[in-house]
Amino acid sequence: MFEYDLLATQGNARAGLFHTPHGDLLTPVFAPVGTQATVKTLTPAQLDELGATLVLSNTYHLYLRPGDELVRQMGGLHEFMQWPHPMLTDSGGYQVFSLAQTRKIDDDGVTFKSHVDGSTHRFTPERSIAIQENLGADIIMAFDECSNPNDHAYSRIAMERTHRWAERSLSVHTRQDQALFGIIQGGVLPELRTASARFIASLPFPGIAIGGLSVGETKDEMHNMLDVVIQSLPADKPRYLMGVGTPEDLIDGITRGVDIFDCVLPTRLARHNAAFTSEGRLNLMNASYARDPRPIDGTCRCYTCLTFSRAYLRHLIVSKELLAGTLLSIHNLHALIQLVNDIRASILEGTLEAKVPGWLRAWQGNAERGEGRHLDDPRSDP
Amino acid sequence: MFEYDLLATQGNARAGLFHTPHGDLLTPVFAPVGTQATVKTLTPAQLDELGATLVLSNTYHLYLRPGDELVRQMGGLHEFMQWPHPMLTDSGGYQVFSLAQTRKIDDDGVTFKSHVDGSTHRFTPERSIAIQENLGADIIMAFDECSNPNDHAYSRIAMERTHRWAERSLSVHTRQDQALFGIIQGGVLPELRTASARFIASLPFPGIAIGGLSVGETKDEMHNMLDVVIQSLPADKPRYLMGVGTPEDLIDGITRGVDIFDCVLPTRLARHNAAFTSEGRLNLMNASYARDPRPIDGTCRCYTCLTFSRAYLRHLIVSKELLAGTLLSIHNLHALIQLVNDIRASILEGTLEAKVPGWLRAWQGNAERGEGRHLDDPRSDP
Repeated sequence: MFEYDLLATQGNARAGLFHTPHGDLLTPVFAPVGTQATVKTLTPAQLDELGATLVLSNTYHLYLRPGDELVRQMGGLHEFMQWPHPMLTDSGGYQVFSLAQTRKIDDDGVTFKSHVDGSTHRFTPERSIAIQENLGADIIMAFDECSNPNDHAYSRIAMERTHRWAERSLSVHTRQDQALFGIIQGGVLPELRTASARFIASLPFPGIAIGGLSVGETKDEMHNMLDVVIQSLPADKPRYLMGVGTPEDLIDGITRGVDIFDCVLPTRLARHNAAFTSEGRLNLMNASYARDPRPIDGTCRCYTCLTFSRAYLRHLIVSKELLAGTLLSIHNLHALIQLVNDIRASILEGTLEAKVPGWLRAWQGNAERGEGRHLDDPRSDP
Repeated sequence: MFEYDLLATQGNARAGLFHTPHGDLLTPVFAPVGTQATVKTLTPAQLDELGATLVLSNTYHLYLRPGDELVRQMGGLHEFMQWPHPMLTDSGGYQVFSLAQTRKIDDDGVTFKSHVDGSTHRFTPERSIAIQENLGADIIMAFDECSNPNDHAYSRIAMERTHRWAERSLSVHTRQDQALFGIIQGGVLPELRTASARFIASLPFPGIAIGGLSVGETKDEMHNMLDVVIQSLPADKPRYLMGVGTPEDLIDGITRGVDIFDCVLPTRLARHNAAFTSEGRLNLMNASYARDPRPIDGTCRCYTCLTFSRAYLRHLIVSKELLAGTLLSIHNLHALIQLVNDIRASILEGTLEAKVPGWLRAWQGNAERGEGRHLDDPRSDP
């Protein structure tokens, strides 16, 4: 269980297979975000049909509502939301820092007030792991602290705390049917990132996450940090870049050696009428689409593009019909997942290098890094 | 085209087949309401899967937005919303009277202001038919005036105007691939209803609608009016009871000889967390369902009941997740359509009379007549 089979490489890019109790994951893979045990507006049947294989859910939100004990009693997250394929939960740390009110952090953990009802709660590494064991995802995350990339002094403090918390997370984790991933921090400082990557890689985690990126640093900083970190990671464990990303970020991340991604961007932009396409982004509210009989993207094979015109989608948007969000979510998720599938195929075929420039040209204009952040949190969709 | 084959009767109840350009409709049939060219929150694929065969859309709403000319340019309503099965549009009259602002009625037609932007418009029988020809549904309706059931003096005026408008609607209707139905009015006065039924039946309409019921009259009044009207209708044309209804109303209507129904109730109640079941109605917001692993209805074969627990549905509702409305709409529509299918099967088998008391007991508590009216209009879902 939780072995990673490296099937092919091209440069730093990898194609592989990660074995989980709910099936084998082909990597690289993009995970839609289902914060409250649902990928907004979509049934599991629709998610399956659009090609999703891994779904992320947020520990902070599920702990508050409906509660991890309730989810456990209902048979765990897979059974509760009826997603039969692999799942991943984060540690809750990121939301405690970004969403909760009046948090107080110490070396033992974090005390915070719920954004739902103001009640007081405390997360520690031990508590986060216990909650994630109740939720029962295939991949769970060590409790960590993400630092502001511009606060270099604090980046070291947060990194060192993250390392101690990684060890505590490991030591209390009991479920053999869950892969606990460690998280690398270190802000935008290469020496910290190298140290963190080496430390986390030295612990017996079956997979390794790269945290603290796509949180306000520049694109160059993100690329540099990825390059630095990947050098220090073993080949036989999957690498997960948390909260990323845009189509462009996926191409950049995969070519640098990342295997797993998640982001709220495709579903959040869908609910703001925006559609990714291989010719740039469309805002389907635009009056120019009122009589446009074409699908969003003529090259796309999703249900939305195989079925509906831009004119109809615009009508749904203008008429404030909820179906618009469903149909655009189907398209945007399918677009990202299909892009990742195409990249994986090109790694297996050995054609990646030739194809990347074209993909970057095609997908660059679709979204900016950080764009998902116009709500409070790019990592969850509450 | 538009022949009605009577397959079996039991008492006044009928099972039949109505031929349309988009397929044969098995009757009795219940039509979900897709006011703005979408049954709220559902894809056509989901509608098809839950067993819908006929979908109603509202002329008033589509005329205002996106406009009937646009729908025509996009290939008509079936093509626009990608519903491949039979469709029905109403005449727009009911919404002009119930939704539009500052309407002014005369013998020629109605002038009204749009509820969307306040702009001034005019509907006449000729205009309504022209709009419905642009929309292109299989079944379209004559322009009529619905009167307040408590205003007996006005009921005659509205009925006589409806008759003149029925003749004008017929005389301007040109599309041979559309069945134009006449509408009976007459309030709650048996002599008016009889006269109206005879008059409308004397015109060459391929189907006949019963209007002006489920608009505030008592249950006994509705039953009496149905009994009176049905006596005067020919056996070889389908009968459509507009804007009805509750599960109980469907049972009562079919046993009295009605073939076609539509109502916003199942989808509107779904968006208010209510589910129809064969043991009475559930409000899934109720805390007692928080840990309930059972489906909404253990006897139901819809996607929602085959897949999800009450606990999960309650979590979606409490968390304000849009998927709740989708899943409850699937269930409620499937429940009504399945009830009608069961009744049809019992008519074909000759077991209707024995089964009706049990169905009435099972379904009576699910909804009250008029309950769909907590928004402005029980006939549309804008």
